Amino acid sequence: LTSRLPAVGTTVFTRMSALAAQAGAVNLGQGFPDFGCERSLIGAVNAAMEADFNQYPMMSGAPVLRHAIGAKIAALYGHQYDVDSEITVTAGATQALTTAILCSVHPGDEVIVIEPVYDSYVPAITLAGGVAVAVEMEVGAKGYAVPWTKVAAAVNGKTRMIVINTPHNPTSSVLRAADMQALADIVRGTNVLILSDEVYEHMVYDGQRHESVSRHPELAARAFVVSSFGKTYHVTGWKIGYVAAPAALMAEFRKVHQYNVFSVNTPMQHGIASYMADPKPYLELPAFYQRKRDLFRDGLKNTRFELLPADGTYFQCVRYDRVSSRTEAEFAEWLTTEIKVAAIPVSAFYQQGKESGVVRFCFAKKDETLALALERLATV
Amino acid sequence: LTSRLPAVGTTVFTRMSALAAQAGAVNLGQGFPDFGCERSLIGAVNAAMEADFNQYPMMSGAPVLRHAIGAKIAALYGHQYDVDSEITVTAGATQALTTAILCSVHPGDEVIVIEPVYDSYVPAITLAGGVAVAVEMEVGAKGYAVPWTKVAAAVNGKTRMIVINTPHNPTSSVLRAADMQALADIVRGTNVLILSDEVYEHMVYDGQRHESVSRHPELAARAFVVSSFGKTYHVTGWKIGYVAAPAALMAEFRKVHQYNVFSVNTPMQHGIASYMADPKPYLELPAFYQRKRDLFRDGLKNTRFELLPADGTYFQCVRYDRVSSRTEAEFAEWLTTEIKVAAIPVSAFYQQGKESGVVRFCFAKKDETLALALERLATV
Ligand SMILES: CSCCC(=O)C(=O)O
Ligand SMILES: CSCCC(=O)C(=O)O
Repeated sequence: LTSRLPAVGTTVFTRMSALAAQAGAVNLGQGFPDFGCERSLIGAVNAAMEADFNQYPMMSGAPVLRHAIGAKIAALYGHQYDVDSEITVTAGATQALTTAILCSVHPGDEVIVIEPVYDSYVPAITLAGGVAVAVEMEVGAKGYAVPWTKVAAAVNGKTRMIVINTPHNPTSSVLRAADMQALADIVRGTNVLILSDEVYEHMVYDGQRHESVSRHPELAARAFVVSSFGKTYHVTGWKIGYVAAPAALMAEFRKVHQYNVFSVNTPMQHGIASYMADPKPYLELPAFYQRKRDLFRDGLKNTRFELLPADGTYFQCVRYDRVSSRTEAEFAEWLTTEIKVAAIPVSAFYQQGKESGVVRFCFAKKDETLALALERLATV
Repeated sequence: LTSRLPAVGTTVFTRMSALAAQAGAVNLGQGFPDFGCERSLIGAVNAAMEADFNQYPMMSGAPVLRHAIGAKIAALYGHQYDVDSEITVTAGATQALTTAILCSVHPGDEVIVIEPVYDSYVPAITLAGGVAVAVEMEVGAKGYAVPWTKVAAAVNGKTRMIVINTPHNPTSSVLRAADMQALADIVRGTNVLILSDEVYEHMVYDGQRHESVSRHPELAARAFVVSSFGKTYHVTGWKIGYVAAPAALMAEFRKVHQYNVFSVNTPMQHGIASYMADPKPYLELPAFYQRKRDLFRDGLKNTRFELLPADGTYFQCVRYDRVSSRTEAEFAEWLTTEIKVAAIPVSAFYQQGKESGVVRFCFAKKDETLALALERLATV
């Protein structure tokens, strides 16, 4: 059997989590919380099962959940998607991203991605027969930034789509209104689509606001906007996400979606919909994670690691060149097995494995987990 | 945006369920039970959530569930798959089928499908850039049968895969040992893969046994075998399925799987794994559904419909040419809106929409639902 994805191995998250378990390390690698979700969310799913919401939901998603999602987007970002034709519930954000790519990228099309790039985008583009064109973020005093002039220069007649991710994994950078303006200037007058991965939408810190593509009508008119509940509600294993897009794009999305997964877990959809009636959990999330970020950053000041800015997500990148000259993969492995703190090498987010002496930690952990990790990292 | 799947509309199941709801019809169209699942299954999922099994599971599936699946296959079909490298949990059988196609079919490859064909296979083949080559089942005194000599004639150097489905939706036919032998004879000495959709594996009647491809080592060595829990445990909306395949095939499957959905709902996996400890629910399923089949068939004898054999699945096909000369789609619509019993036109399972005067009913319904439907069908 000839591989459709010869370049693909096991994801770095799977590998580092396995190594962390084997080494008995504190796992700050793969992004997921080590604390539980709210019991009322569990109760809501259980109630849905008990009420026999256990058969096929609508292919596009349970209406109650699509309405709750539509209402949330309208309240937060001021864009009213038609819940029947413009919102679809997916089996997690990854499925939404891959389906958006598969439904719109034709063989030979180019798709611009921003490096460091989340590891699922490029394989999905390859599977569609497309060509990923990477533009590297630049690192300045304020941290990682997208060089829009380079993005503009990469656009040509073959460009089908630009994939963005804000807040950004792994760099914790956040696009601002000026970035959205720059992106709008680039795509205006072209047929280029936008795919926006916004799964960390509720983790933007220091009073800044999340610049969802849905806030920007000119962009929203050509965009698939993807998010999920896993990060927001501390249930990364539930795998319920969604995509919002104009009806014409959504019609194509659903053609692939209905033959990819057909539909998504019914009781989880109903449980989440009823839990969403209260906006508090996501409105309070920035303060919740900003506190953890600050606690973790303060602790890292007692180490020899150099802190990079962290404006969003639950990740913190650090430079380790005062500590080691190993490659990032080697350093992350050493940290996991010797210091007993797992991290993710940022080189895994570059197609060519670019080395910049940076690893990523996840701070979505109990305070005591972070304290233990910091104690160990101080010994480096 | 140019469509990747120009031929695709909304699935017939979605359309007929919507029409049934609108018409207030008894819905014997889309295949799902109108009764609940066992409360202990719900309890097991709830217990998993309460025990905080809510974060990312392993990409390949929760080990407990892969072990339970492996043990079941070994006990029923005598094939021991390696649970680490040869079983993967999927977001329903559809995702398993589509992923198996996407990971192995290259642009230009031919894939043989048997018509009538479940509606997700061909779009998945198209999305992969492959070409679906249809071989029609033949209808004899014993019902629908696969003409293996025609399948053999369709195999050529471009053939990458043959997709089979047993028990078969929509015809309720079941492949026998002789069929498996014929298939083995066809693929022996070639590189042709088998994709076997066995989601109705526990619905084989009249004391016959299910000829899983896993029973046949020569076939299993080149096959993706797909099943799910939705039909077996009366929870079609939970969307948890699985695929078993030799390690070399599974490695390719997982490359696509990990960037399609990454992983599958954690608490559902744990709940199902613990529920599987007792084999009774699936061992008793044939008797449970055979009783409903017989009840439904007996009732249909009082109507002007002509019964076709129903050896497996929870579907019953009938010929309606003594009743109407409408096309199948028109007849199914008329039945839904006028007689208030929804059915599925079998023409929807033929790429060219072949008319054979047959519609499909689903008998996975409460006895009183079947009684009401039969009362109405008797008026036709
Ligand atoms: C899908 S597993 C990886 C989780 C994640 O998004 C990350 O750690 O970056
Ligand atoms: C995935 S919805 C269709 C259910 C089904 O398999 C059928 O009715 O044939």
